[in-house]
Amino acid sequence: MSLWDKKTGSLDFATLRQAYTQGLTPTEVVQAIFARIDARGEDPAWILQLPRAAVLARAAELEQAGSQDLPLWGLPLSVKDNFDIAGYPTAEACRAFSRMATKTDPVVQHLVDAGAIIIGKTNMDQFGVGINGTRTDYGIPRNTFDPAFISGGSTSGGGATLAAGLVSMALGGDAAGSGRVPAALNNTVGIKPTPGLIPLGGGSRAGMSASHNVMTMTVADGVIATRVMIGYDAEDPLSRPEAEDFHLKLSALPRAFRFGVPSKATRIFAGDAEAERLFDESIARLERMGGKAVELDFAPFYAAAKMLYEDAFIARRYANLQSFFDAHEDQIYPATREIIGWGRSYSGADVFVAQQTLARHRQVIRHMTKGLDIIVTPTTPTTFTVEEMLADNIRRNAMLGTYTNFVNLLDMCAVTVPMGFRADGQPLGISFVGRALEDSLASSFAHAFHAALGGKLGATETPIPSPLEGAFA
Amino acid sequence: MSLWDKKTGSLDFATLRQAYTQGLTPTEVVQAIFARIDARGEDPAWILQLPRAAVLARAAELEQAGSQDLPLWGLPLSVKDNFDIAGYPTAEACRAFSRMATKTDPVVQHLVDAGAIIIGKTNMDQFGVGINGTRTDYGIPRNTFDPAFISGGSTSGGGATLAAGLVSMALGGDAAGSGRVPAALNNTVGIKPTPGLIPLGGGSRAGMSASHNVMTMTVADGVIATRVMIGYDAEDPLSRPEAEDFHLKLSALPRAFRFGVPSKATRIFAGDAEAERLFDESIARLERMGGKAVELDFAPFYAAAKMLYEDAFIARRYANLQSFFDAHEDQIYPATREIIGWGRSYSGADVFVAQQTLARHRQVIRHMTKGLDIIVTPTTPTTFTVEEMLADNIRRNAMLGTYTNFVNLLDMCAVTVPMGFRADGQPLGISFVGRALEDSLASSFAHAFHAALGGKLGATETPIPSPLEGAFA
Repeated sequence: MSLWDKKTGSLDFATLRQAYTQGLTPTEVVQAIFARIDARGEDPAWILQLPRAAVLARAAELEQAGSQDLPLWGLPLSVKDNFDIAGYPTAEACRAFSRMATKTDPVVQHLVDAGAIIIGKTNMDQFGVGINGTRTDYGIPRNTFDPAFISGGSTSGGGATLAAGLVSMALGGDAAGSGRVPAALNNTVGIKPTPGLIPLGGGSRAGMSASHNVMTMTVADGVIATRVMIGYDAEDPLSRPEAEDFHLKLSALPRAFRFGVPSKATRIFAGDAEAERLFDESIARLERMGGKAVELDFAPFYAAAKMLYEDAFIARRYANLQSFFDAHEDQIYPATREIIGWGRSYSGADVFVAQQTLARHRQVIRHMTKGLDIIVTPTTPTTFTVEEMLADNIRRNAMLGTYTNFVNLLDMCAVTVPMGFRADGQPLGISFVGRALEDSLASSFAHAFHAALGGKLGATETPIPSPLEGAFA
Repeated sequence: MSLWDKKTGSLDFATLRQAYTQGLTPTEVVQAIFARIDARGEDPAWILQLPRAAVLARAAELEQAGSQDLPLWGLPLSVKDNFDIAGYPTAEACRAFSRMATKTDPVVQHLVDAGAIIIGKTNMDQFGVGINGTRTDYGIPRNTFDPAFISGGSTSGGGATLAAGLVSMALGGDAAGSGRVPAALNNTVGIKPTPGLIPLGGGSRAGMSASHNVMTMTVADGVIATRVMIGYDAEDPLSRPEAEDFHLKLSALPRAFRFGVPSKATRIFAGDAEAERLFDESIARLERMGGKAVELDFAPFYAAAKMLYEDAFIARRYANLQSFFDAHEDQIYPATREIIGWGRSYSGADVFVAQQTLARHRQVIRHMTKGLDIIVTPTTPTTFTVEEMLADNIRRNAMLGTYTNFVNLLDMCAVTVPMGFRADGQPLGISFVGRALEDSLASSFAHAFHAALGGKLGATETPIPSPLEGAFA
């Protein structure tokens, strides 16, 4: 017990599991979380917190079952509000959409079955459209390092609850960058698996993710949680047959490796010299780790990224939400309404033309990245204050997605980890982007980089465990 | 020379190459072809024949080069009118579209470079939309066994010129069945490779194929010609990386195998008892060859097939032709105009919904066919007279595509070979359908079946060589 501080102790998996073996109980952890939540006061990171009695009952249930060999036993979890939990409303951050869920989504159930304790449902960019965290009817979650700044989105509340030490992991989704941007802007880790590895579940939600994902304090934690979520689902048409026996794991890095980076001429930082400095330092760090940087003309990546919102692919968002959107257009958050509305204007022919163009970008990128072990980018070019974001929501959101929007469109995977802090104290992230099914490789690079960087976990006072252990088997 | 009869000798590869080693010359073959063409008289199978002087010059060129080790040396070829040959018009069977080609399409060039001799350009369903052969501004090519019947389409003239013994191979394309249906209805062979194995070339054509293909007299011939066409193309966004080192070849069949067939309850013959008899006999033949028939509920195949024309996928055809179509709508063949016009009415959202539905069918089929070596279907449920086809063009065309339309949509490959004759003398085909990249397997099954069936090549008097040799290495 002396090893875990109820006030400041991190909830990362390794710390908590060690404390559990030394006598700490899930009930004590949950009570400490309630105290932390109370200390923070009113907090738009949550759309709803589960009744405390229910959370305590769940903790007691785990203690009585004594099933400590479960991979997520006693680990607190926040769930993005686009997942269903039976008996609680799902709103996707849209009051007009809110309705009571009668079933629990399979991916949530899998995490619970693996021993996780749900603390509550977290705020998000409405319907998962956006990666900035301001597009919501439920108040704007704030960055854990400075409330003037955005938490990032769409899993805005997830990033905040994790970094603040209120949970061990935050479940979300990631189509454009929703599970990487808030991880990066809160000094945590986000694993975005190859599309199709994690079943998308019953399709009960209006917004659709290209993949579900978790944010965690370390890559090792993320690997353990992601394993619970990966699997083949005969009911999900986009489920990948390779998911059937896919084993995500960490490995030591090769002694020498080649990593692609955007060429100096094509790097985008939106004028953020601090972000540029951090990325330069990151490249130097990777070179000290045995890497050789290979500069890539990033134009085809940017062209692909732009297609997610500024071409016919936006029609997919409209397709997912069509009947609700048409009936409740005036009750949708303005920026979200405008963006989804673009999807209406594209024709079927436009989509086939766009898919052909995307295939062309994909092919160029396949050639360009041949022989590279990994691609490394900033996770975002910069960050913004809430005020800046509200003043120019659509354009600045597009800027945030510069390095994340292309990943799912190109059928790739990515892992974001911290790359340090700007002079003003805002954290930024670095992304390790892999080809389809190279999730273990991307995770291993991200893990090694994070260990080499050092520092603290999220916004807690707990140092990054060094060397980082776990998830190597 | 005594081995090859100028009047009735088949132009299949094995026969011609043997005769060439015995002293026959390409010039003599070409002259024999001219005589056969003259004997047939006016023939809408051709949209244009190359000037005879040019063809004779080409034959002489090959003789002087003496490059008899080329895989297609001295083998006559017909080219579907949607390919460009420099110096000749490309019309795609639409007079208003006809324009002079300034370049030769790469796939045509590859066949020529391999030694083929182009005889002429063949008629087709306009823009490749249709698999019946009547939708053309250039007269309707007739079936080689009975001019009252259709030749099938869209490579209608290709099937007729091949079966009539005017060429050794007919180059075409196959999105819905365009290279399988005319092969089947003219007692020949059509290989439709996995999409992306053959580069689609410069995109100079209005209609787009999911794959180019050849029709030949035997599967061994088709394998040899298809090898010349397969390859990776860095300029074709749909080119498959696996094409880079793909080696198509024939193998002996396993002693025991399991083949899927449409279940009795889900077989479709449009009331054609003769087609049903031929298919029953084919199943019995395959069982004698060591196969075990496994009945499949074919509903998801039919549902996928229907999507090609009766859902948002038709917007792809419109996308390919959009600018010409909008400007010249009234000059397009009526059925073709109607069908392509459907593509206008689909929205971008419709396409994403349709693609999701198709992914669902694909998944169901993947499960259903697990553990099967091959899928076997009739190539068409039946055939029609030209009169019947003109009387109900769209509905009967859809009927013809019952067993072919789904193949490309599901990313599969297929090979059609003869399955015998109806009592009225009309030939029908049987298709061996494989998963993506199982082209060698599908070809091997088709080859073995064709050898077991026996009979004559196309509409010639030349018997099927037995045992069929070639293309095993």
